[in-house]
Amino acid sequence: MAKQDRAIRTRQTILSAAARVFEKHGYQAATIIEILAEAGVTKGALYFHFQSKEELAQGVLSEQDQHLALPGRICKTQEVVDVIMLHAYRLQTDPMVRAGVRLSLDQQAHDLDRSGPFLNWGEVLTGLLEKAQAQGELLPHVVPRETSDVLVGSFAGVQAMSQALSGYQDLAERVRSLLRHLLPNVVLASVLASVDLSLTRGVTVFTELTETHDEETAVPVG
Amino acid sequence: MAKQDRAIRTRQTILSAAARVFEKHGYQAATIIEILAEAGVTKGALYFHFQSKEELAQGVLSEQDQHLALPGRICKTQEVVDVIMLHAYRLQTDPMVRAGVRLSLDQQAHDLDRSGPFLNWGEVLTGLLEKAQAQGELLPHVVPRETSDVLVGSFAGVQAMSQALSGYQDLAERVRSLLRHLLPNVVLASVLASVDLSLTRGVTVFTELTETHDEETAVPVG
Repeated sequence: MAKQDRAIRTRQTILSAAARVFEKHGYQAATIIEILAEAGVTKGALYFHFQSKEELAQGVLSEQDQHLALPGRICKTQEVVDVIMLHAYRLQTDPMVRAGVRLSLDQQAHDLDRSGPFLNWGEVLTGLLEKAQAQGELLPHVVPRETSDVLVGSFAGVQAMSQALSGYQDLAERVRSLLRHLLPNVVLASVLASVDLSLTRGVTVFTELTETHDEETAVPVG
Repeated sequence: MAKQDRAIRTRQTILSAAARVFEKHGYQAATIIEILAEAGVTKGALYFHFQSKEELAQGVLSEQDQHLALPGRICKTQEVVDVIMLHAYRLQTDPMVRAGVRLSLDQQAHDLDRSGPFLNWGEVLTGLLEKAQAQGELLPHVVPRETSDVLVGSFAGVQAMSQALSGYQDLAERVRSLLRHLLPNVVLASVLASVDLSLTRGVTVFTELTETHDEETAVPVG
């Protein structure tokens, strides 16, 4: 394994350990010592990648951003739905995404700047809504930045409510219900009529992404 | 002061102290010892009212419920708006409400049942929406329970986003933006046209309530 590959892998090991420790204790009570023990790396290795607990938390927070890119759709409203439904699916299945979302909502993490995920999600959704607007999918009164803020904020709460009430069992249903309440006031009915809002949309998009990725990285045989 | 009054006052002192400690450290890291010190009461007094840290947290969580009742309005949609805008105002101004909301979103509080506020808010808003429906204020497709869940969940997230990005400075604006996105898909346009969604609605309702309360409890002079 090349030196660089090894460094990337170590960084990932440390981030995964940090995610587990932050998820268990919250930001305030988490300690670098416990993250070290959980990761099973040397102090030197950890400090090579992260200078402080805050940097570790920022690393976990920004892991969500890796997943914001999706294959483009002709219908930009569908892309908005897909990016949200996929995130809901990842929240249920990927501990790193879960840790990031919880950190961003950790209102006790007073000295941690938690604005990153809100702002990045805001950027991505604003961009998609602007494209949707440019191709005439949106109702005339819509301000993409404002709608994007509402989507990001309300999603954060709906996932927290789903976690508190059902341990994420009803997450896809709650997210769909949110979108069904919001989208008719944002998107033309004629566009909405062909948007897939099914409960399995998240896993469908995830599978599509994983398969594309496998094809790209597959080594041709023979 | 009668014995009962003193007990009520002590209970309130303890709850306020608990709210401050939970808000500072989160549920997991908070200790009864620190709550005791913060409240300045005896161990016996504390345990007379609350048997455990969980009971203290449930006490803080349920303090929000005190504030759910509002003077009735002819327009039930306005009552929905008022209860939400008033809650936003209290969140900015009342540390106990703030501590309760944060506890309910504390995803690290694994062994604390945080469903109470979500369910109580759900009940209240479902009830109001059912009344609104009965008097013909709502669009025909609306299911009050489902819309109520969306309102409760999305409010929780919008407040968290406002806290993370602006320390609650933009809370009223974000909540109004949320309602402007949701209500046109729930309420008849003819009803919405006369609903007050102004940014100062929360403080207006609060003042109205406080004045009513003062009149009721005022001791006649002379």
